[in-house]
Amino acid sequence: MNAKTGNQFGWAQLCASNVFIEFIDTTLRGCAQVMFQNNPLTGLLFFIAIFVGAYGEGSPAVAYGCVLGTIVATLTGLAMRDRKSWRAGLYGYNGCLVGAALPTFLVATPVAWACIVLGSIVSVIATVCIADILKTWKVAALTAPFVFTTWMILLASYAFTGLHSSGLPTPTLPQQLISEPGTIFGGGNVFVSMFNGISQVFLFSSLVGGIIFVIGLAVESLWAAIFALLGALLAIFTAAFLDASPHSIHAGLYAFSAVLTAIALGSTFNQPSWRVLTYTIVGVIFTVLVQGAMNTLLSPIGIPTLTMPFVLASWLFLVPNKDVMPAHRQ
Amino acid sequence: MNAKTGNQFGWAQLCASNVFIEFIDTTLRGCAQVMFQNNPLTGLLFFIAIFVGAYGEGSPAVAYGCVLGTIVATLTGLAMRDRKSWRAGLYGYNGCLVGAALPTFLVATPVAWACIVLGSIVSVIATVCIADILKTWKVAALTAPFVFTTWMILLASYAFTGLHSSGLPTPTLPQQLISEPGTIFGGGNVFVSMFNGISQVFLFSSLVGGIIFVIGLAVESLWAAIFALLGALLAIFTAAFLDASPHSIHAGLYAFSAVLTAIALGSTFNQPSWRVLTYTIVGVIFTVLVQGAMNTLLSPIGIPTLTMPFVLASWLFLVPNKDVMPAHRQ
Amino acid sequence: MNAKTGNQFGWAQLCASNVFIEFIDTTLRGCAQVMFQNNPLTGLLFFIAIFVGAYGEGSPAVAYGCVLGTIVATLTGLAMRDRKSWRAGLYGYNGCLVGAALPTFLVATPVAWACIVLGSIVSVIATVCIADILKTWKVAALTAPFVFTTWMILLASYAFTGLHSSGLPTPTLPQQLISEPGTIFGGGNVFVSMFNGISQVFLFSSLVGGIIFVIGLAVESLWAAIFALLGALLAIFTAAFLDASPHSIHAGLYAFSAVLTAIALGSTFNQPSWRVLTYTIVGVIFTVLVQGAMNTLLSPIGIPTLTMPFVLASWLFLVPNKDVMPAHRQ
Repeated sequence: MNAKTGNQFGWAQLCASNVFIEFIDTTLRGCAQVMFQNNPLTGLLFFIAIFVGAYGEGSPAVAYGCVLGTIVATLTGLAMRDRKSWRAGLYGYNGCLVGAALPTFLVATPVAWACIVLGSIVSVIATVCIADILKTWKVAALTAPFVFTTWMILLASYAFTGLHSSGLPTPTLPQQLISEPGTIFGGGNVFVSMFNGISQVFLFSSLVGGIIFVIGLAVESLWAAIFALLGALLAIFTAAFLDASPHSIHAGLYAFSAVLTAIALGSTFNQPSWRVLTYTIVGVIFTVLVQGAMNTLLSPIGIPTLTMPFVLASWLFLVPNKDVMPAHRQ
Repeated sequence: MNAKTGNQFGWAQLCASNVFIEFIDTTLRGCAQVMFQNNPLTGLLFFIAIFVGAYGEGSPAVAYGCVLGTIVATLTGLAMRDRKSWRAGLYGYNGCLVGAALPTFLVATPVAWACIVLGSIVSVIATVCIADILKTWKVAALTAPFVFTTWMILLASYAFTGLHSSGLPTPTLPQQLISEPGTIFGGGNVFVSMFNGISQVFLFSSLVGGIIFVIGLAVESLWAAIFALLGALLAIFTAAFLDASPHSIHAGLYAFSAVLTAIALGSTFNQPSWRVLTYTIVGVIFTVLVQGAMNTLLSPIGIPTLTMPFVLASWLFLVPNKDVMPAHRQ
Repeated sequence: MNAKTGNQFGWAQLCASNVFIEFIDTTLRGCAQVMFQNNPLTGLLFFIAIFVGAYGEGSPAVAYGCVLGTIVATLTGLAMRDRKSWRAGLYGYNGCLVGAALPTFLVATPVAWACIVLGSIVSVIATVCIADILKTWKVAALTAPFVFTTWMILLASYAFTGLHSSGLPTPTLPQQLISEPGTIFGGGNVFVSMFNGISQVFLFSSLVGGIIFVIGLAVESLWAAIFALLGALLAIFTAAFLDASPHSIHAGLYAFSAVLTAIALGSTFNQPSWRVLTYTIVGVIFTVLVQGAMNTLLSPIGIPTLTMPFVLASWLFLVPNKDVMPAHRQ
């Protein structure tokens, strides 16, 4: 631990000399890459936040699924030729999310655990596939491999009695939402909602978890932490302006995709500037609309949006990046 | 007006010397580009047709939305680097359609107007995004940016009580259509249906509006006007042969996408020839099938197809263009 | 016949000298390409299997549709510039499947036959379109043109009273499958299920038909025949492990896409090796999950998956091929 926190050089040397420690380091980076950070300490903090959140919600399987998914995906990544991407954790983050999502929505039976392992393996193949396709336009796969793989397994759970839903939304035809009573702007509530939104990236609501995630971000990039907080805040206000369900807003369900859009557009794929800030604000507001849209779109088939609103909105805003940003930014 | 109609040179000089007039000219071209024409007079005639049609249906908000959307999108386009596309109105036409579609399906509240502004801004980003992706295969974005942006906002309206549906189809599971009594081939009816179909590109049925649209087309391209009329006619006969709802046929709902396919395949992206004519006929007939298919596909989620049948069918026929057309056409 | 079976050289010369015989040869190759084989004898055996299966199920229209679709598509292919693809039957196989699928799900009225002709023509355009798009990533169109074209016509059948469903699934919201009593592992049953699965590629269950398909494969490629059988077997065990409906497993409904994935990944686009075998096993297992997922996904819109699970899973595994397979494989 000391090596890691107090002495990054020592840790780097340890990784270089010991294959097992290198693997642990890569697995931690895999977890950190869920929010675009290439830093093992960020990954460790994220894992802590996940255990805090999962135990807090009484669903420890989510945390163990996360660990399992990241490990399996990182192992699978060893079979790929691109060792640099492997070392940066880029084959691990989708498995991490597959491992968080499946126990959230399915009963943790042995068949479900087998699906987490299979899903994590496939998430790596999907990562290479989608990254290959998207490099034509110089855009990253984001969390699309996770979403695609998890959607397939969740949809399949309706057809296979070996997989039991524990939290999938019941398939229904969309109906106009009836205005719900309830306010979200009562003092500290917005503050809590904000951190709920950040922790919802890993599919749970947790104030403490959310705070640890932000600390983890700040360890690697202060801008990422700032954009995460501002993204969550702007998403909450946008959803409130559009009159979304106050309960959903408070649980962070309109913020988690927006948080990722804010980090991606604001700090990961652009250097902060006024122009980038404007672009990011439009992107975050649009992500909230896409979140509402995808809730409707998926309601007849009974699966959650996962982080697809973030993926769609960010692709939409990242492909034209070079046509929008000043020339020296390329 | 005289400068525009009587003296194109004078108008071009005026545009070159006055930024404000250049902006108006570009906005008019934006409207004309909905049907692929790069001509401010065509745009002006289209706007007139829109006002005639919108007031005729008692929904003036559609016309004002159109003007607002085109202006906002044209303004947003100023932020893009490609000034030639901007000047041709290629950043404006999707905003124009967003502005027509949202007030057609949503109650025109302040939140809805805010969504028109946001949607028009996003339509420009979507235009650059989709155009960037599609230039890999030398195909244009067509009206896909409009469809994507508008679908998102219409789907989102189910999740947000701030947006109220005024005309969205009720979500239902598809059912085989029961044969409806009614004929469409009673004398002048086909004539009216044809112009209804052309005006449905802007989401309303209007004989006078349709006629003005055709005149607007003819001002820039006689072939475009001819293909629009023949496309509408062929679509009506195809839909009647397949036994579609006579009411929908008469309202032009099977023709508007086919009209755009006919102009695109027949005159915009190809030079008229017998081979092109054959190809266009198959394309138009298939567009009618896709229209029926997408009506079914979207019925559980309660949104209209907009011009997606045209977009899908035209992409399908335009990508292989170079493999089908004689070599000198490339 | 003798020329074909006993003397390939004689047949090849005959094809070269007689345009009509060349066309028949190409049409037969079109049928064989449904399972990736470029061999007229394979195609002839496949057509025999189709007639056996179609008459066995009491739906001869399926067999005649198949013949018609392949012929129309092969004729349409003459209009394309790439004569080498035409000669290999690559413009024919999607039309063959369109011709099999439409009479399976629609009443064989004159309008339906017109749709088979139109669908076969469009399938060729879709083949060129999708192949053009996918060559950016060096991946084949597979049966996507067939799926796309047929889905459009089947979806459209709900909107047009001229087209009557004879076997489309009733649109329903997905529900968790209730465990069905019934075993699939009673002696010879697995054997029958395996061949049912292979014949389901052409949308019917037939032991004899399935056996003839395997013989047809073996005529051109022993590996293809082996992978078809192993793919079907693995799919049946996977579906049983996941507790799918025993009836569907026995009818081969979880195997047909897996059979195609196994042939594609195991023998067509890779040379058999241990690494390829492992990759193919993961691909086949995932195809079964995608089959379950797509059954759920499509249930509200009342259309069958056709071979889309194969297409999706195979694209997913073929795009990263070069990143996974040893360097000399490129």
